[in-house]
Amino acid sequence: METLANIRIVLVHPVYGGNVGSACRAMMNMGLSQLALVAPRPGFNMQDAAMMACHAGDIFKNRQEFATTAEAVAGCGLVAGTSNRGGLYRDHAKTPREWAPRLLNAALDTPVALLFGAEDNGLTLDDLALCTQLIRIPSSDAYKSLNLAMSVMICAYELFVAAGAFEPLEERSPECPSAMRETMFAKWRQALLDIGFMTDDTADHMMLGLRRILSRGPLTEKDVQILLGMAAQTQWAAQHIPAKP
Amino acid sequence: METLANIRIVLVHPVYGGNVGSACRAMMNMGLSQLALVAPRPGFNMQDAAMMACHAGDIFKNRQEFATTAEAVAGCGLVAGTSNRGGLYRDHAKTPREWAPRLLNAALDTPVALLFGAEDNGLTLDDLALCTQLIRIPSSDAYKSLNLAMSVMICAYELFVAAGAFEPLEERSPECPSAMRETMFAKWRQALLDIGFMTDDTADHMMLGLRRILSRGPLTEKDVQILLGMAAQTQWAAQHIPAKP
Repeated sequence: METLANIRIVLVHPVYGGNVGSACRAMMNMGLSQLALVAPRPGFNMQDAAMMACHAGDIFKNRQEFATTAEAVAGCGLVAGTSNRGGLYRDHAKTPREWAPRLLNAALDTPVALLFGAEDNGLTLDDLALCTQLIRIPSSDAYKSLNLAMSVMICAYELFVAAGAFEPLEERSPECPSAMRETMFAKWRQALLDIGFMTDDTADHMMLGLRRILSRGPLTEKDVQILLGMAAQTQWAAQHIPAKP
Repeated sequence: METLANIRIVLVHPVYGGNVGSACRAMMNMGLSQLALVAPRPGFNMQDAAMMACHAGDIFKNRQEFATTAEAVAGCGLVAGTSNRGGLYRDHAKTPREWAPRLLNAALDTPVALLFGAEDNGLTLDDLALCTQLIRIPSSDAYKSLNLAMSVMICAYELFVAAGAFEPLEERSPECPSAMRETMFAKWRQALLDIGFMTDDTADHMMLGLRRILSRGPLTEKDVQILLGMAAQTQWAAQHIPAKP
């Protein structure tokens, strides 16, 4: 299935080689093949990874490595991040089953990234900010924290099952790559500071709100060009605000 | 959820302690708690199991152990077995998602067993014969074989998700326990041999067919009493068959 081939599993700062190997096997079980690692933690055991990958060793061998999460997802239209915590700007998280059709539809045109955080701490706020979709895997309140490779399996499984019954939307337009989207958000951040809509203290918080609004539906390159233009014009206008006495 | 508490994960002749520990964690993540082991393979590493169970160590500690699969499921109404092979008398296998409501409904009244075979060979034909339901986990043709703990996770996850949206059937009757059902099948096996419906050569094959027919819907104790009576009467009749010259 071509759509599955366009979905990239991104493991951010993984600690245990064995978990990454298990994730490779889970990926191959479910028809995925693209693995990206972001700066594995010191002491990461390559032999454990190869062993646990079992017959999926090629996925591990063919992995890409990146220094930062932003670089790992730079070319990806949709970026979905997993988190099992609630709280601020996470209440729009959905289950893997709910997101699967949206991810498959995007994967027809653009690489799609699925982000998983480190075994101990999960994804950071900076990682989550890069995400257009948040995924919360259903789990029991008695023990919410899933093993890393298990999380990969459940997401991969839902995509594989959904792909079997998948019918793409008729009208579709390619999603904007992450790098261009981030340029736009950086420009808006500065513009909103310039016009005094927010301060340095509140900027991170406010920007998560804007990110959420702009991830409700697809965001194409043309959309982002318009948003870039609006931000530029806003900055131009801000130059005319009289300085405070 | 009470229904989940009534579902027992049965691992038959597991080889690796680590896999059993990972299965315990997956179970607790998904609200399951009953673990049964059937004669772990020599060399099974208890320390690995406890370590990989992580915060689910109590599930491993509270496990039950049995010498045979039949004993492990003797008290269970529904017995569901996982297999990723196709072939004879397995074409009625369904996915974990399809079976989940049936399993939850049975678990309202009776213990339900989910069987998983050893890492190397899976469930034997004898194990599968004990099953009223066959489960086939969807997976890619490129690599069909899932890690043991991963298989447990996917089944547990589907049950957990289904339990959240589960509405029991209005009219329900308790399912017959496995031990009584096996007595009935043994009696029918002898009766069908006695009347010459099958021979020792073909008996295993034919009995799988009968098992399949009688696992299409619920089979209550009263149903099984009737079937026992029919078998007894068939055997009585067989006594009157003239011996071949």
